[in-house]
Amino acid sequence: MSNKLYESYKEITQKAADLQFASAVLQWDQEVYMPAKGYTFRGRQLATLASQAHEWLTSDKYGDVLKSLADAKSLSEDEAANARLSLEDYEKNRKLPIDFIEKITQQTSDSYNAWIQSRKENSFDAYATELGKMIDLKKQQADLYGYEAHPYDALLDDYEKGATVAMLEPVFKDVKEQLPPLLAKIKAAQQVDDSVMEGNYPRQQQWEFSMDVLKAMGYDLEAGRQDISEHPFTTSFSSLDVRVTTRVDEHNFASLLWSSIHEGGHALYEQGLPEAQYGLPLGSAASLSIHESQSRLWENCVGRGLSFWKHFYPVLQQYFPSQLKSIPVEAFYKAMNKVEPSLIRTEADEITYHFHVLIRYEIEKALLEGNIKTKDLPAIWNESYEKYLGVSAKDDKIGVLQDVHWSHGSFGYFPTYSLGSFYAAQFFEQAEKDIPWLIGTIESGNMLPLLEWLRKNVHIHGRKYTSEELCNRITGKGLDFTSFMRYAEHKYSGIYNL
Amino acid sequence: MSNKLYESYKEITQKAADLQFASAVLQWDQEVYMPAKGYTFRGRQLATLASQAHEWLTSDKYGDVLKSLADAKSLSEDEAANARLSLEDYEKNRKLPIDFIEKITQQTSDSYNAWIQSRKENSFDAYATELGKMIDLKKQQADLYGYEAHPYDALLDDYEKGATVAMLEPVFKDVKEQLPPLLAKIKAAQQVDDSVMEGNYPRQQQWEFSMDVLKAMGYDLEAGRQDISEHPFTTSFSSLDVRVTTRVDEHNFASLLWSSIHEGGHALYEQGLPEAQYGLPLGSAASLSIHESQSRLWENCVGRGLSFWKHFYPVLQQYFPSQLKSIPVEAFYKAMNKVEPSLIRTEADEITYHFHVLIRYEIEKALLEGNIKTKDLPAIWNESYEKYLGVSAKDDKIGVLQDVHWSHGSFGYFPTYSLGSFYAAQFFEQAEKDIPWLIGTIESGNMLPLLEWLRKNVHIHGRKYTSEELCNRITGKGLDFTSFMRYAEHKYSGIYNL
Repeated sequence: MSNKLYESYKEITQKAADLQFASAVLQWDQEVYMPAKGYTFRGRQLATLASQAHEWLTSDKYGDVLKSLADAKSLSEDEAANARLSLEDYEKNRKLPIDFIEKITQQTSDSYNAWIQSRKENSFDAYATELGKMIDLKKQQADLYGYEAHPYDALLDDYEKGATVAMLEPVFKDVKEQLPPLLAKIKAAQQVDDSVMEGNYPRQQQWEFSMDVLKAMGYDLEAGRQDISEHPFTTSFSSLDVRVTTRVDEHNFASLLWSSIHEGGHALYEQGLPEAQYGLPLGSAASLSIHESQSRLWENCVGRGLSFWKHFYPVLQQYFPSQLKSIPVEAFYKAMNKVEPSLIRTEADEITYHFHVLIRYEIEKALLEGNIKTKDLPAIWNESYEKYLGVSAKDDKIGVLQDVHWSHGSFGYFPTYSLGSFYAAQFFEQAEKDIPWLIGTIESGNMLPLLEWLRKNVHIHGRKYTSEELCNRITGKGLDFTSFMRYAEHKYSGIYNL
Repeated sequence: MSNKLYESYKEITQKAADLQFASAVLQWDQEVYMPAKGYTFRGRQLATLASQAHEWLTSDKYGDVLKSLADAKSLSEDEAANARLSLEDYEKNRKLPIDFIEKITQQTSDSYNAWIQSRKENSFDAYATELGKMIDLKKQQADLYGYEAHPYDALLDDYEKGATVAMLEPVFKDVKEQLPPLLAKIKAAQQVDDSVMEGNYPRQQQWEFSMDVLKAMGYDLEAGRQDISEHPFTTSFSSLDVRVTTRVDEHNFASLLWSSIHEGGHALYEQGLPEAQYGLPLGSAASLSIHESQSRLWENCVGRGLSFWKHFYPVLQQYFPSQLKSIPVEAFYKAMNKVEPSLIRTEADEITYHFHVLIRYEIEKALLEGNIKTKDLPAIWNESYEKYLGVSAKDDKIGVLQDVHWSHGSFGYFPTYSLGSFYAAQFFEQAEKDIPWLIGTIESGNMLPLLEWLRKNVHIHGRKYTSEELCNRITGKGLDFTSFMRYAEHKYSGIYNL
């Protein structure tokens, strides 16, 4: 009986996944190859796919199947986990009435267009009104979901199940208390020269080197590919077709490679999800923060580490002999790790990055509380940057208008970036404990032991465990900021002779 | 009342089109960029999209709307045409029960795999059984559709509405009677030297020249793009996103360019369909034969014509100076038009091509009549090639196994290729009458007057008229083989000094 029930649960869920993966193909195409006029009808094609998937996933029939499965006795542990997680998703999805979804979908489009417009005009005004409407809808959404302590909790849960203000406050308290002393020491030290990053690095060689690195990371190019897009991203159409994009700047070496490695980290996670769980919770990533832990572990702990470059710098020098032959690996390593407060989040170093996130977190929380007004955002933004980083934006384009997230209604997304970095440091620390020779293998260009460790400890579980459960299984405790501090202090002490 | 009805008709039809266009994106990706392992789940994603679109288009609700619209009084002429055509589609779609569709979908996959296997082994046996099952299903399909005179009529109608054996017989009678004397005269004449086609033509220059030509044809690259695939094809995701593919062979100049022009002809048709009729019959092509008339008009009447090359040959010589500087345009023109009986349909010249189609037409008809057995196909194939073209295949891979069509269950498709050529000659003859200076514009590299003529006479009407109605509107009569004969006799008399 319950097997048949489980089969019909699987059928509906996987059919909805088929449409969601099809949407992902259309979105990938849109970012990578679609001709300009294709936009005209692409939007409605995506909307039809999304609304049909939503219809299946919120149907009474699906709910009945899920509720019956909750009482079924004969499910395996994995089957029960899938059914439980899908029931949670279902109950959450059902909380938003269809007219609310239509309203917020429309608002997303309006806010996004206003954001584009405002950036073009470099003026916050056009955006302010539409963003204000979006924030009102997000408050309504929080009410529809329901919450115990803080409306922001309801929204955070969309990106990071179980995350709350109460859980984030101590994390950002650590950021506010522990990072400034390190930053101050760095500021007082001899500064790093990173001019080598801005040489002339022809596109083709940058591309080929990034492909070498992706292959060495264990990225399966028979189940993936790399293309160029304006904003790098990773997308998945099943664990056997996971694609990354990167960008090229011939006068900034930092642009392509670390985007490739970052997205490669995301892609390894998606390729490592169990194929047999296609479209089901156990075939999906645990959470955004765990996803980000994978990209940042590869980008920062590996790809900005001296061990990695011991092997790869000579390879890079062969690609760019005239640019790099006289630069020792240590100088190149220091250049890529230069710490300096700046205005743009996506270009920030590993330390100041978290103040960018903190600023957004504080603003989002206050917006949800109704303590600040949309029109005051540029001023609040600039005050926060002055306060935490000692910099202030000349204009809104490199200030409050720099991120697309809020126009999409993504409130609660930013904190997962910092959580990802902190989980990454904690996981990497554990991997070093579990594999004593880990650094040696990386120094020899062999990253497969690390990948195998991630496969076994993170990837294979899909959504079976929450971020915190997973962290506990791997490291014996929940998120622990001290790992990141140890990582940062060790790394920057070396670079800045602290 | 009827406006509201029309709106709900439009909504269902266009939503189904959204899914069908999404499928087209997935199929394009599959042929062009998908990594090998992506196949594993791509099939089920396509199946889900197709079955949902089918569900909408065969639903009782849709039928009720269409039937009510048939009696509605206040529709515009175009609205009434859409509703009428969609009702015809609906009634035809409803004739196939869902279990039949599932069976034939499965058989398509089995036959296709057997075809691949047989080609690999260069032996018909593996394919024979699966093809036999497919033919049985096609006979069932003909019975389900119903027909008056011949079971083949029911299948032809899927590709060419209204086409019947009774309509094709006189066409192929003309082919059998009128082409052999011309072929005999060509055979008796001084043969053409086409060795220039097999020089060394680097890929990049071939590509760039094909892009020059596509642009000159009026192909809108903001609403399209060209990529490389194994088999050239055109696909459309709306009239504002129509893509072509071509293939490259550095040692065969004929491979890339005429594929680009042929697919470009298809693409111009799709780009010319009215945007306001997105997803509706009037936003779709009239028929396969009319589609093929567009590709062949551009490929043959234009792209293999001396007028075209008067302008483009000097351009081509600049791309390939060492290969072409000593070859006069007339020699190049003759080389590209060499007539010679051969084994492979897709490589055939404009004359012998129609015997390839005739052979397939006769075999399909006999298979449907039950007069020949699947296992005898290789022998029948070779006998027919001997009889009509005087050539015989050493093995099945270049014989009966050369085309994919039958494995897909496409019986009735081949005749549209010949119809397309004949319509093309008839349309081009008419365009020359309507625009007396047409050849002069082509000689100067300006093909926009021709495109404008096609837009107005063919593209803009979508499916409003059947092939024969359209041909009548444009030329004052139905399909007339004499146009093709005049075209062929004029062209080859020049080339072979007949």
